[in-house]
Amino acid sequence: MKSYPLFCQLSELHTNRENELVWKESARWIKFVEVVEDSGRWSKPHVATISILSIIDLKNILSNGLVYLNLKSKPFKYFVDELVENMVKENMLNDDNVMEMKKILFLPHYQQYQKDFDDQLIVGETLKISKKKNKSEEILEKNDLINNGDENKFVFEDEFESTVEADDDEAYSIDFRSVDNFPIFDFKNKHFFKKIPDGSKTANILIGQVDFLKHEIGVFVKFSEPSSFYNITEVPVSTKYFFLLLGPKGSMYKYHRAGFSLATMLSDELFQNDLHEAQDRKDVITAVDDFLEQSTVIPPGQWDTSIRLEPPDRTPSKEERLILRMIKVKKDKPHFGGHEDDPCLKRTGRFCGGLIDDIKRKKRWYLSDFKDAFSFQCFPAIAFLYFACLAPIITFGGLLGFATDNYMGTIESLLSGLICGVLFSLFAGQPMTILGSTGPVLIFETILNTFSKSYGIDYIGFRCWIGLWISLFLILISITDLSFLVKYITRFTEELFAMLIAFIFVIESVDKLLKIRKSHRFTSNPYLYANEFNENSTSCFRCLHVNSTFDPNIFILNESVYTEKQCEHFGKGYIFQRECQHIPDVFFFSVILYLLTFLMVISFRYLKFSSFFSSTFRTILSNFSVVITILIMVFFDNIIGLDTPKLHVPSEFHPTIPDRGWFINPLERNEGKYWLVFAALPPAFLATILIFMDQHITAVIVNRKENKLKKSGGYHLDLFICAICIGINSVFGLPWFVAATVLSMNHVIALRKTSESTVPGEAPKLIGVMEQRVTGTVVFLLIGCSIFITEILSYIPMAVLYAIFMYMGVTPMGELEFFQRIQLLLMPKKHQPDLVYLRHVRLSRVHLFTIIQLICLVILFILKMNKKVSITFPLMVLALVFIRYALSYFFTEKELSYLDDILPGTGKKKKVLNVGEVNIDILEQARKGSIWRKGPNRADLTVRRNSVNMNQIVELIESKKASLLKSETN
Amino acid sequence: MKSYPLFCQLSELHTNRENELVWKESARWIKFVEVVEDSGRWSKPHVATISILSIIDLKNILSNGLVYLNLKSKPFKYFVDELVENMVKENMLNDDNVMEMKKILFLPHYQQYQKDFDDQLIVGETLKISKKKNKSEEILEKNDLINNGDENKFVFEDEFESTVEADDDEAYSIDFRSVDNFPIFDFKNKHFFKKIPDGSKTANILIGQVDFLKHEIGVFVKFSEPSSFYNITEVPVSTKYFFLLLGPKGSMYKYHRAGFSLATMLSDELFQNDLHEAQDRKDVITAVDDFLEQSTVIPPGQWDTSIRLEPPDRTPSKEERLILRMIKVKKDKPHFGGHEDDPCLKRTGRFCGGLIDDIKRKKRWYLSDFKDAFSFQCFPAIAFLYFACLAPIITFGGLLGFATDNYMGTIESLLSGLICGVLFSLFAGQPMTILGSTGPVLIFETILNTFSKSYGIDYIGFRCWIGLWISLFLILISITDLSFLVKYITRFTEELFAMLIAFIFVIESVDKLLKIRKSHRFTSNPYLYANEFNENSTSCFRCLHVNSTFDPNIFILNESVYTEKQCEHFGKGYIFQRECQHIPDVFFFSVILYLLTFLMVISFRYLKFSSFFSSTFRTILSNFSVVITILIMVFFDNIIGLDTPKLHVPSEFHPTIPDRGWFINPLERNEGKYWLVFAALPPAFLATILIFMDQHITAVIVNRKENKLKKSGGYHLDLFICAICIGINSVFGLPWFVAATVLSMNHVIALRKTSESTVPGEAPKLIGVMEQRVTGTVVFLLIGCSIFITEILSYIPMAVLYAIFMYMGVTPMGELEFFQRIQLLLMPKKHQPDLVYLRHVRLSRVHLFTIIQLICLVILFILKMNKKVSITFPLMVLALVFIRYALSYFFTEKELSYLDDILPGTGKKKKVLNVGEVNIDILEQARKGSIWRKGPNRADLTVRRNSVNMNQIVELIESKKASLLKSETN
Repeated sequence: MKSYPLFCQLSELHTNRENELVWKESARWIKFVEVVEDSGRWSKPHVATISILSIIDLKNILSNGLVYLNLKSKPFKYFVDELVENMVKENMLNDDNVMEMKKILFLPHYQQYQKDFDDQLIVGETLKISKKKNKSEEILEKNDLINNGDENKFVFEDEFESTVEADDDEAYSIDFRSVDNFPIFDFKNKHFFKKIPDGSKTANILIGQVDFLKHEIGVFVKFSEPSSFYNITEVPVSTKYFFLLLGPKGSMYKYHRAGFSLATMLSDELFQNDLHEAQDRKDVITAVDDFLEQSTVIPPGQWDTSIRLEPPDRTPSKEERLILRMIKVKKDKPHFGGHEDDPCLKRTGRFCGGLIDDIKRKKRWYLSDFKDAFSFQCFPAIAFLYFACLAPIITFGGLLGFATDNYMGTIESLLSGLICGVLFSLFAGQPMTILGSTGPVLIFETILNTFSKSYGIDYIGFRCWIGLWISLFLILISITDLSFLVKYITRFTEELFAMLIAFIFVIESVDKLLKIRKSHRFTSNPYLYANEFNENSTSCFRCLHVNSTFDPNIFILNESVYTEKQCEHFGKGYIFQRECQHIPDVFFFSVILYLLTFLMVISFRYLKFSSFFSSTFRTILSNFSVVITILIMVFFDNIIGLDTPKLHVPSEFHPTIPDRGWFINPLERNEGKYWLVFAALPPAFLATILIFMDQHITAVIVNRKENKLKKSGGYHLDLFICAICIGINSVFGLPWFVAATVLSMNHVIALRKTSESTVPGEAPKLIGVMEQRVTGTVVFLLIGCSIFITEILSYIPMAVLYAIFMYMGVTPMGELEFFQRIQLLLMPKKHQPDLVYLRHVRLSRVHLFTIIQLICLVILFILKMNKKVSITFPLMVLALVFIRYALSYFFTEKELSYLDDILPGTGKKKKVLNVGEVNIDILEQARKGSIWRKGPNRADLTVRRNSVNMNQIVELIESKKASLLKSETN
Repeated sequence: MKSYPLFCQLSELHTNRENELVWKESARWIKFVEVVEDSGRWSKPHVATISILSIIDLKNILSNGLVYLNLKSKPFKYFVDELVENMVKENMLNDDNVMEMKKILFLPHYQQYQKDFDDQLIVGETLKISKKKNKSEEILEKNDLINNGDENKFVFEDEFESTVEADDDEAYSIDFRSVDNFPIFDFKNKHFFKKIPDGSKTANILIGQVDFLKHEIGVFVKFSEPSSFYNITEVPVSTKYFFLLLGPKGSMYKYHRAGFSLATMLSDELFQNDLHEAQDRKDVITAVDDFLEQSTVIPPGQWDTSIRLEPPDRTPSKEERLILRMIKVKKDKPHFGGHEDDPCLKRTGRFCGGLIDDIKRKKRWYLSDFKDAFSFQCFPAIAFLYFACLAPIITFGGLLGFATDNYMGTIESLLSGLICGVLFSLFAGQPMTILGSTGPVLIFETILNTFSKSYGIDYIGFRCWIGLWISLFLILISITDLSFLVKYITRFTEELFAMLIAFIFVIESVDKLLKIRKSHRFTSNPYLYANEFNENSTSCFRCLHVNSTFDPNIFILNESVYTEKQCEHFGKGYIFQRECQHIPDVFFFSVILYLLTFLMVISFRYLKFSSFFSSTFRTILSNFSVVITILIMVFFDNIIGLDTPKLHVPSEFHPTIPDRGWFINPLERNEGKYWLVFAALPPAFLATILIFMDQHITAVIVNRKENKLKKSGGYHLDLFICAICIGINSVFGLPWFVAATVLSMNHVIALRKTSESTVPGEAPKLIGVMEQRVTGTVVFLLIGCSIFITEILSYIPMAVLYAIFMYMGVTPMGELEFFQRIQLLLMPKKHQPDLVYLRHVRLSRVHLFTIIQLICLVILFILKMNKKVSITFPLMVLALVFIRYALSYFFTEKELSYLDDILPGTGKKKKVLNVGEVNIDILEQARKGSIWRKGPNRADLTVRRNSVNMNQIVELIESKKASLLKSETN
């Protein structure tokens, strides 16, 4: 069934201001319609609604008019001659009117884009067209003779330049303006031409009212080979269909409506198919009936016809409609489904099977992983992620230094970022994942350090043993394919975890901001404040850390004010120094910076979806939104000149405690205590669970089907690289890095690719993500190099970065279905949006599911925030998988299929195999004709079934079934 | 043509979980459709789209089935008996199946709301329905016998309580649950019953598939008198139409579709009309065809049928559709039009004619002006406007004191507010207008004071003469009907002026906020700041005003720091006092207060349009948004405890300068200078123009047709009251108050009434404004009483009030079309919204119009802001009217009719008289049948014209024409 996309153009006979007749473009179609407004502009593309009456009119015209379905391609001049001849032959036209008819058909065609072009018209002067109408005939003819036949060849107009005579009334100045040396393409609407799909043909629809006719004349022509009627078309696309409707004066609206209907039908894929195969008039009429039969009717009382329907988010595909044409039933589909059919999560059963498969799979894409990064979009993504990753590394570094008595501080964190980030980005299975230091790891280190101190063990040496064990465990997991268990992680677990992390980001952002007031207290009594400088009150002293460069981050994060005694107790590096408590204005100004930064970044995001400025400009602006905002805020902060807390990166490369050295020898550091090797086993086991869950939940979130990744993930490989990194970091005494959920989600969001919309009116769609290894690698290289640009970075106020954290937490949160369901809890039933799962799952069950998730979220949050129990956090995350398993006893499979994904194995019996949108059971029935035979009685409409379509469906079903079976048996 | 609103209910034969058959409600219609979702909830109301196939199916069923169009009302039992009898008679049913058919028809009806009610079902238990089906028959029969006949009488169920026997299997526990002593109404869906329009009838549509039938049986019944089939209907509304479709198993979807189509058609007003008049089967079929003919078709390829169309903002009225049925042409209409046809602006030509007419007109409403205020909505409006009016009076009072050497200050402004506000609210023509002190008046006073001082004239005495002249001029204008000139003020002038004032509100809001930093400087060096307290540096001194209570507002507004010499030069009341420049934290904290207040008020506004919480709660919250926000912010400010600038109201009632006294005797104050009486003429003339323009532009903005005011305005009376107020204020030396544009607009917005939506799915519409005199009176009484609650008011930070100013400026700005057009300037053509004027006016012309307005705006803004030329501001405002007049030479009438209003007189020749949506020319043609006769050829569909409809149209046209002519000749 061969057919081509059609560009339909409706031209109407129009009297211009000088009272001359011209053909004027009035509407055009590429799938959706654009009409020329009364104001002379193109309307927005919209769904072309038509009235049934107009289709009936059209049927009458097609029944009584001339219909040619296999006309040979010929120049316009000869085509018109033949047409008029036939009109006379069929007694439609009097001999007297032949010349008049030809004159009408040879009138110049006036395209809408020319109006835009013609300034004369805008200021009110009128179009100058020769009154000698015969002239037009002559020129059109010559032009046609030249252009005929080859639609891809752009004939240079200068070949017939001579025909444009230096006429005093500037004949046809519109059609042949600036003819010299330009190809005919240049006459046409270049900009619009780009939007027409390749291989398109044109359908020219001409309608008009004339004096000399007593009754309507309708002509419908299908050319066996497309003809190049470039002079009557807006774009240089050759004509496949031609429709002419001329009639006596007084019924212009009726002709318009009939032409509009035909054009709308022609823009329909299935109608095109039918017409393409039509052999006689009857087939054409049947095609119209078939079209009507599939159409949807809007009742007149419930709809105002002047409302234009915006193009919907999705339209049914040709295949779906072929099936629907037979079965007339349509179902909403549940979710995309879980990770069960992800080939990366297949258990091979072979030693290293999964790992080897991962490597094989990724090898194919390895070169493209670098090539694909040649896009402008990568620059803003790198800039955004650089700040997004650097800021937490610095703040976590400060916290870590505090937690580990400076065994590991900011410089170690930076180094770890460099090593892990670059290694992971270059060699991991899913380079879109971004590593970072996470909260649970920090807590683990804190507990470990306290434990070590109280038992007199050297912390950094003991930690080395643990790290090596973790590394070993992770390698074992990755070579035994144990990561296949990840498929039991469903949307329930993913969204819960993502929500938790995003929520913590938000909380920490606000918390950190508010902590500025601890170090920069404001004053409600300026006189009292002034006195502080005079007295030697103890409140003016502070416990500070001095052995390294003064690091205000540690200072900021230092929550409580210590007494002199406590300060001494901290030991080396801490001194009790005079420092006044009140540093006014800084805190409030930081809050303002924070608010403005957040508002600005959010506004940039809204701007992207607004209608202001060109879409290119908006896209660039929104890509660079974070960077632009940071720059503006740095500038603003600098102008005000307050000493706000800034980002401080160590400027020299040596361990925070100079005497520990880079290489850690665990045997040497805990000499004699060899039992520590085995004492390290239990904590290592716990940490392994933690890292396994943290790493893989992030990975499945990145790999979700919604993100439309093309290169698939590689869970075994991911874990293997992680293991290597942890091994290295343990030996060098650096913090361990794992996949950071929020950073990874923001990485994916920043690199989303949307379709360049071709059909006017269709919204750009997410077509995938720029999957490559360059952004990650460069970001972490830059982080490593940050110590060289300490100067520049120290201009950035921390409050600005905290606001960016807030933004990073809020953005992915809004995309979670969990978040959507939480909102439902607050909405009365009748105001709830029309969501697919609400159509199929009882509201009380939806709420129950949400509440269970919320309870889990609260428990996890408490566990994570409460230092005493936070060691059990990894176990609780693991427990989520079991909770999800237990849910299948409380919820039906149908409910879970809409609210969550089906767990592997459980849903086998009743599993519905999806073929695109229609489920295979219905397809099967369609094939067997079982539903079809019971179909409706359609005595009123002539019904014609296309056997080719039927075969296509059978093919489709068989191929889909085969592929599904194949993936199941694998 | 009598017909009634129909409630349509579709019930389907359904097998429940216990494998028993029941009738189950599956969809219902009041204009729009709600369907029962798979999940068991009601969907949102949406436009019921149907397929053409289903209409064709339905036509077949109606053609071949039983159709009774004048059946007598009877109990359900007898009705079923008769129906089944006829089925046998017509050979549709075998004798063997009679009992089975009856069983089916007597099955219990299970309504959707019962599901919500029944918790048992939610937790998964199943419905218990007796297996002895004969029982049902018996009970239904008895029930029916009792309920029959009177639809408005709710028969008490206990009358047949005995029929519900203590059966062991709890037969019909659903239908007769908790029968005791409750009227039958209580069984029904009370909540939903309220939404059904009065006088509605029911259409019951029953469809199902059964074993025993070999072919479809369709029955359509119209009762001559509605029957009370309450047991099969969700609500106690009697049945007018009954449709039954039963058929063999396997085609349920087809039956559903046919039933769904019929119900959709029945929910259509015109279809109801047609059916109401139908006498035979042919008429019914024709009605279906007529319906189809008017329907709109959505092409299948451009639309996904699973998308539900939200109910549109407006649907065509029955009258419009009757006309459209004939002429099939529809035009977008231009604007509502200007003030030309406002009866208040007619020039009577009689002495005091307009004024007397105004008084007559307003007298009619005077009682209702107080009665109408008995609404909860008035409370938040009063609270909001109290703060909205008080804050500018206080700040302007401070400025005025500064400008007039304290001859008039805050206390005088409060008193003026009390006098003018109360008088105007009680007696003016348009009490929705709010008076206030405006910028131009302030400037006028400043200039006057400077002038007086330099010529040694007593300012307050001279001002008294001027005021008396103004008062006289205004009275002359009002008694000579000169206000009729207001009709030359079009949307162009109104929107420009409103935009200017709103913009100034925004600018002043930010400016005032930033000025806080002048009095409360922040410090970038806390050490330096501390030193300020020790040194006697001159920078720590300030020129302060001390003879009245210390007023920080004046202090704030005192822009520059004066030297000791300058301070002395100011004379009495000013001293040069030590005051340190740096008061840290206050400024930045004020900015935070400002930002948070603005964000919070805006969020409340957004919340109103969101889906969260019940709509009642949201409305209350949004009404009180300003008050709640102020309270929260006061609380927050108090917690932080900084000495932020607060609202300071004088606490004692005496003139700012104690020796001037309340009564001003102009002769005494400028003794001997009697020529001053005439010297006062030119400034009085200028001020009259200013007040005339300021007052009337605000009035026309309030009186615009969009606001849907019912009680009309009264321009002459407005001006008269203004004149009286100005007279009084001049004699007592109080500032003059005129209509304040932004305050008035906010007053109208706060008191908007929206329709309580009855039809599910229809959006609430603006139906008018709560026009009354109470809010204005109470607000200004409260303002007068403010001096008694100085203590409480002094808790309110000024920054919070500034943010409210910002909100007040921004809110009405967004509603101006001018603002919309400014946005268009920034949008590329293809992203522009589909606005009516863009469909009809060339974009370049729209932009040109906007740019002209923008230029005027800039000029006005500069004039107003620049003190040197601001005296010419009133002349420039007047010039706007002439500029608008000049525009008619640059723009066509059509363009101006879309972008602006047509000026009175100019558009007469070509004026299009609008009758609702369709212009009268077309209506005329429709009446004469001229368009109709040229109408489309509709051989395919049977066409029937209803002569009654035609007569209706003729009547409609004649009445509209008469009223239009009448208003023209008047």
